Amino acid sequence: MTSPSATESAGIRVAVSTVIFSLRSRPGADALMIPLVRRTREPFEGAWALPGGWLDEREGLDDAAARTLAETTALSPSYLEQLYAFGDVDRSPTRVVSVVYWALLRSDLVDAQRAAEDAPENVEWFDVDDLPALAFDHNRIVDYAVWRLRNKVGYSRIAHGLLPDEFTLTELREVYEAVLGRRLDPSNFRRLLEGSEALLPTESFRTGKHRPARLYRYNSEVELADRGPLGPA
Amino acid sequence: MTSPSATESAGIRVAVSTVIFSLRSRPGADALMIPLVRRTREPFEGAWALPGGWLDEREGLDDAAARTLAETTALSPSYLEQLYAFGDVDRSPTRVVSVVYWALLRSDLVDAQRAAEDAPENVEWFDVDDLPALAFDHNRIVDYAVWRLRNKVGYSRIAHGLLPDEFTLTELREVYEAVLGRRLDPSNFRRLLEGSEALLPTESFRTGKHRPARLYRYNSEVELADRGPLGPA
Repeated sequence: MTSPSATESAGIRVAVSTVIFSLRSRPGADALMIPLVRRTREPFEGAWALPGGWLDEREGLDDAAARTLAETTALSPSYLEQLYAFGDVDRSPTRVVSVVYWALLRSDLVDAQRAAEDAPENVEWFDVDDLPALAFDHNRIVDYAVWRLRNKVGYSRIAHGLLPDEFTLTELREVYEAVLGRRLDPSNFRRLLEGSEALLPTESFRTGKHRPARLYRYNSEVELADRGPLGPA
Repeated sequence: MTSPSATESAGIRVAVSTVIFSLRSRPGADALMIPLVRRTREPFEGAWALPGGWLDEREGLDDAAARTLAETTALSPSYLEQLYAFGDVDRSPTRVVSVVYWALLRSDLVDAQRAAEDAPENVEWFDVDDLPALAFDHNRIVDYAVWRLRNKVGYSRIAHGLLPDEFTLTELREVYEAVLGRRLDPSNFRRLLEGSEALLPTESFRTGKHRPARLYRYNSEVELADRGPLGPA
């Protein structure tokens, strides 16, 4: 802001997009899924793209991410965090800087939100490991978001954003397995998590075909993810 | 980009700023320092601000960060990474989204670059723990950058960006102490680092008042910081 010139970044527009992750149950391992929106105009008409839209002059970036996500998919995430600003000169026919967010949505809420009357018709969920060629640089953006999620799940309680309030240790392990894309040893996982201060046992049990499994919840006194001086989203 | 309106983010300008860290030797513990530029025009005329400038329509964000840093401070960092996009509506009298980078500069290079003939006169270095009230939301930005640096130094070899190619374990510990803002136990630190694959002993020693200390270098086969699919800066 110290050397304004004739251009002063005129002709550059700011968009906001969101990579919103959820899990879908599948025999074997759960799949990590994201919703995509089919484009109805050029450029990339007919191609799948991340939900998003233009930043409005009167709204902040976080608000724009939540608004454009709701407008395009009718989804409302349990966790939303800024990921990265993508601004390569040739990423779009016109000059667009996209501030990208990533979000988590509990799978039980996905079903409810998809069944809602106002759910848009041009939205579909895709397995992140089996995506088509997306519009713009959106494949690269998804790759980066998956990498960040896989890194973050190791050192924060981020898996919570994909689970209902109470869950079994097996359900928690399945979230980690879906995010990390690999199997974890059940007894090692149980030993590691049972010793964690972030996890609290409840007096409830999940019953069914198998023997009853204790339900746990996250200790709400610990932040979902430490965002430092920027505080929670 | 799916619901263009009459505004399409018109009136929003994109700036790029950089928080560039270095260390200054001080009796006791080294200080973590950043350079600031005194503003020569409104808004905030006369106040100190982060080095930066407007994004040009024909350059990418990384290039803009390096260019505006060179133009305002004549500094060229050893490590440069995107930090966060700041876009609150009221952060500037006009609507500006600032894509902020953070960078590291070896202290031996700071002195060389400051002594250069083209070094600008309106740049000064400040201790991050003793900053004046900065222009815009720049105090908040610096707080966030320091928090990220302190987090990152724990799980990556980021300290390398603040050191010359060869260094003693004491010098490395002093970098960690300055970044983390606390003393570390010398023998624990030595034990931890000597077992690390990232650190390679050389056959050279630093001599002086104290007994000779072996020089180490970082294993260049390991990335400075894993940036995933986005690759190195």
